[in-house]
Amino acid sequence: MKREIQVNEERLWQSLMDMGQVGALPHGGCCRAALSAEDKAGRDLFVRWCRDAGCEVAFDQVGNIYARRPGRDGSRAACATGSHLDTQPHGGKFDGIYGVMAGLEVVRSLNDAGIETVAPVEVIVWTNEEGVRFDPPLAGSSAFAGVVDVQSVHAARTRDGTTVREDLEAIGYLGEALPGSRPLDCFVEAHIEQGPILEAEDKVIGVVTQIQGIRWSRVTVTGVDSHAGTTPMNRRRDALVGAAEIIVALNRLGREHDPSVRLTVGKIEVEPNSGATIPGSAAFIVDLRHPDSPTLDLLESRIGELVEGIAGASGLRTDIARIMDKPPVHFSGELVDAVRDAARQCGYPAMDMLSGAGHDAMNVARVVPTAMIFVPCKDGLSHNEAESATPAHLAAGARALLYTLLARAGSL
Amino acid sequence: MKREIQVNEERLWQSLMDMGQVGALPHGGCCRAALSAEDKAGRDLFVRWCRDAGCEVAFDQVGNIYARRPGRDGSRAACATGSHLDTQPHGGKFDGIYGVMAGLEVVRSLNDAGIETVAPVEVIVWTNEEGVRFDPPLAGSSAFAGVVDVQSVHAARTRDGTTVREDLEAIGYLGEALPGSRPLDCFVEAHIEQGPILEAEDKVIGVVTQIQGIRWSRVTVTGVDSHAGTTPMNRRRDALVGAAEIIVALNRLGREHDPSVRLTVGKIEVEPNSGATIPGSAAFIVDLRHPDSPTLDLLESRIGELVEGIAGASGLRTDIARIMDKPPVHFSGELVDAVRDAARQCGYPAMDMLSGAGHDAMNVARVVPTAMIFVPCKDGLSHNEAESATPAHLAAGARALLYTLLARAGSL
Repeated sequence: MKREIQVNEERLWQSLMDMGQVGALPHGGCCRAALSAEDKAGRDLFVRWCRDAGCEVAFDQVGNIYARRPGRDGSRAACATGSHLDTQPHGGKFDGIYGVMAGLEVVRSLNDAGIETVAPVEVIVWTNEEGVRFDPPLAGSSAFAGVVDVQSVHAARTRDGTTVREDLEAIGYLGEALPGSRPLDCFVEAHIEQGPILEAEDKVIGVVTQIQGIRWSRVTVTGVDSHAGTTPMNRRRDALVGAAEIIVALNRLGREHDPSVRLTVGKIEVEPNSGATIPGSAAFIVDLRHPDSPTLDLLESRIGELVEGIAGASGLRTDIARIMDKPPVHFSGELVDAVRDAARQCGYPAMDMLSGAGHDAMNVARVVPTAMIFVPCKDGLSHNEAESATPAHLAAGARALLYTLLARAGSL
Repeated sequence: MKREIQVNEERLWQSLMDMGQVGALPHGGCCRAALSAEDKAGRDLFVRWCRDAGCEVAFDQVGNIYARRPGRDGSRAACATGSHLDTQPHGGKFDGIYGVMAGLEVVRSLNDAGIETVAPVEVIVWTNEEGVRFDPPLAGSSAFAGVVDVQSVHAARTRDGTTVREDLEAIGYLGEALPGSRPLDCFVEAHIEQGPILEAEDKVIGVVTQIQGIRWSRVTVTGVDSHAGTTPMNRRRDALVGAAEIIVALNRLGREHDPSVRLTVGKIEVEPNSGATIPGSAAFIVDLRHPDSPTLDLLESRIGELVEGIAGASGLRTDIARIMDKPPVHFSGELVDAVRDAARQCGYPAMDMLSGAGHDAMNVARVVPTAMIFVPCKDGLSHNEAESATPAHLAAGARALLYTLLARAGSL
């Protein structure tokens, strides 16, 4: 690096705040479910900003957006960054959005500095990272990596009864290009940590070496709908009581096994969900995470035994279906080194770490050299309206990203 | 009774089957939430049948329907029967509907027999017994008995975002008369038992002497929304795990206290209810029933302690609000005797019993001499699409009802 290149901390912050107005919630957070009207508005705003910054914007068949800042050598694959713009139902202004806005800030800062790179630089928005309106989560990057096919993404039903293809068409983001047909030199995703470690260790940059594995299972507990007032306690087959026993036992398993385990039931649907009826059905998602695959296997089998044991003792039937399996991912050593170097060049206190959350980067890593940059977030809080980060930390992450991409893309 | 009067078993059955087509579900049940399009269709069908049978039809400010078969003496208050036409979300074809159709069958049978009563006979449809689309359940009979006022019923929000008044207007059942302004001589509600006792005891008629008390509390457990992948197990404040522990403990309390206790959590709402987010909120309804008030008091205080204890140990906040309190009801001795006599005259095996379920009759009993007639239902199953009863038992209940009302209304 010949000279110091800065990013514009205030501009980056303002972009995050402006994007945070789209689907804004009362307590400072955002709700932009994938392919909703709010998601369309967020995408449109991003596309406008990118065009204003001189980028060529394209999208593919699953609505992933690629904003390219051309390089000198048109034959070179792009050095890419980005993340997602969709949010949790009570999401914050930073999870995902920061990675996209940091990429945009890299483009704008390269413009300000009058730097032409050799390879193009691209900012990517992946579709439906959060999986709130439809399954699977991480849909756009999964399609890019060939983990799911376009047809199955298109056919998925949203919770509003539409298909994903209909929604893509309706919001104007149904492109023609096959996801994955676009060559990338590398992908570096910036993100808030979503955990407490950087803050506790007083570091500014997390050099992410690995993402823990994630498995989702859908557990359905089936009993018998019956009347709450007339059915004696000892004649009930109450699916919610069975599900509650399982949830308590899963939490105990998660606490007792080893400190790296994350075991969560975040979503439950009870039927018929009426005050005076003993529920005949309760279905919930078990989110299991751990950095190593043998432990995931072991815990998954323990979960199966536990579910069967509790249900069997209560006269309930159960069904367990694994609906997502993201193995632990180790990032590209070369690219992780580049992130570490960039943080050092910029003079930011950094540390190696693993990611507890899944990210689009874990899919992209299957097909392209990939790494991630974490910055601290307040109290480690995420998937919460109160999610927060400092302008200085966010700018530091964007600058480390700029240095990483510049080292890879080359400049004259 | 000078001569044997029959009811038409086949006609009664056919009316139940025809009404069961309105809002029919795939497994033989019905979904007619109060004031929905389906409820309107069911009401319209009933009104047409009543007019065809020569009744004068009126409705009041909360949409209760009164179908009157005039008597000889226009100054006499009506001898009334009826129940409700709305259903649970996965309800059956008999709960409530039977009481209305049995009343209609009494009218039709009196017509067939050419009997003129001295007092009028009325068939009443009470609005929103089930409380599925809006609170409170038993709304129509509560307003009739002055337990709730018309304004609060009108202002209630349905789960579809409308007000009850808007819905009443929209479906054409917003009457002008004050509920409760209509004088009644008595009210006798026929109903399927919704429990296993008559079937087990091989009886045809249950002479209901009492309804157990019902209390509903809404329990809200509040934790902190956070990320399922990054938040260590020991730093979580998981509202769903807290709610699950409470639900398990409530079920244990219900099983251990005494065999008359009914303790149920039928409805739960989790926020944000997303697979990758530790839930920050879980709210559920506790349905507590027992025949005697001191036990209800004791259990309610045990429930409060239990909720506080579990939540406190998990760093969760809780709120408990009592949203319904129906004290145990003892029916009119005179009218209960009349039901017992009617069953004996008809030659049906009968037994005294209490009602485990709440019914509109428990409200009406506050202001009018009231009783209930139960008939057996298959496997004691109710609030379930598989709810069933035999044509012969249903006809027996209608005939016992006819004899009861006739004894009270008088004939020449």
